[in-house]
Amino acid sequence: MTSHTHYLWFETKRRQEIIDITDQVAEQVAQSRVREGYVLVSAMHISASVFINDHESGLWHDILNWLEETIAPWDPERYRHNETGEDNAAAHLRSLTVGHEVIVPITAGKLDLGPWQRVFYGEWDGQRRKRVVIKVLGEN
Amino acid sequence: MTSHTHYLWFETKRRQEIIDITDQVAEQVAQSRVREGYVLVSAMHISASVFINDHESGLWHDILNWLEETIAPWDPERYRHNETGEDNAAAHLRSLTVGHEVIVPITAGKLDLGPWQRVFYGEWDGQRRKRVVIKVLGEN
Amino acid sequence: MTSHTHYLWFETKRRQEIIDITDQVAEQVAQSRVREGYVLVSAMHISASVFINDHESGLWHDILNWLEETIAPWDPERYRHNETGEDNAAAHLRSLTVGHEVIVPITAGKLDLGPWQRVFYGEWDGQRRKRVVIKVLGEN
Repeated sequence: MTSHTHYLWFETKRRQEIIDITDQVAEQVAQSRVREGYVLVSAMHISASVFINDHESGLWHDILNWLEETIAPWDPERYRHNETGEDNAAAHLRSLTVGHEVIVPITAGKLDLGPWQRVFYGEWDGQRRKRVVIKVLGEN
Repeated sequence: MTSHTHYLWFETKRRQEIIDITDQVAEQVAQSRVREGYVLVSAMHISASVFINDHESGLWHDILNWLEETIAPWDPERYRHNETGEDNAAAHLRSLTVGHEVIVPITAGKLDLGPWQRVFYGEWDGQRRKRVVIKVLGEN
Repeated sequence: MTSHTHYLWFETKRRQEIIDITDQVAEQVAQSRVREGYVLVSAMHISASVFINDHESGLWHDILNWLEETIAPWDPERYRHNETGEDNAAAHLRSLTVGHEVIVPITAGKLDLGPWQRVFYGEWDGQRRKRVVIKVLGEN
């Protein structure tokens, strides 16, 4: 059994942003030399997500819109968490909804994804340094 | 350490459908001969889900209803993704909400589920061939 | 490769409650002696969640509020599942939204969490005995 750990750093220009990180994940799988196993990709912050979906900019727009309009409007006054001096309670709820991690199977040394699946970092409260952990576990 | 990979294929009659796949997952765990480990069950499409819940048809009806009325109405005009010629943006958002994968622990050679837990495939845009990957990792 | 399994029991006083279980998870990782691997923390019930977020009581209040007001109001008459004699369909939908499990990476023998990340049990239909499984997989 073998393991491999790597951290990705982000500092987005916009406060909310969706970034395709599939190539970085695939690169770490290659470096790990694992042939059969899992790769965990997990946001290390409670106001961000890691998720799998489609590389299509219209959809990214829809996701940001839906998080604001349907799931958790930013509206700081609505939330008790924001009485602590924060204004990002909505980002926490968005992270809970979309999730903060994915596990991708590794088969024959490659990410075993479907034809349209890509791995994304979803930043819901950015413009500061944040991190994702990639952890590969499996056998050579 | 041992691993085992298997793919399930689906082609649902209805566009939205919920299918209990617990027995197929258990069968793959048996075939893997893993005694202690994990089984990952993951939709390979961005408009479907894999989730754990209750084998109760009233609840399945409630889930489909709730996805349409509360989480992400189908309403194609609402979404920019649908300007690409698709009409399934809502299916993507439903997949993000419910999630596309689960990990079930394997203990003493069996799925270590609670008394009411069952594994489901949630099809949010069906009537075409789609796939789920089952990947077992652990020790004999 | 090594594995370690442990069950946590809960019986909450209130019907909905959020409980920080990070220390119990860390203790099981220590007992497992795994240095590099994963720990799966998974609710064994379909009306509960395990999730990662912030140890801040205002936010816990916001989460309970948001589940009731935005995601899935309790309102028993709304759901067909409740015609079976249950009244907890909303708890099932809350479990689907927030998720029922997390995987935390273990690096150098410790939970590899970000600075604010804590692991929580979310009880959405309590006041009875319920269980969480902790399963560690990795290498010494």
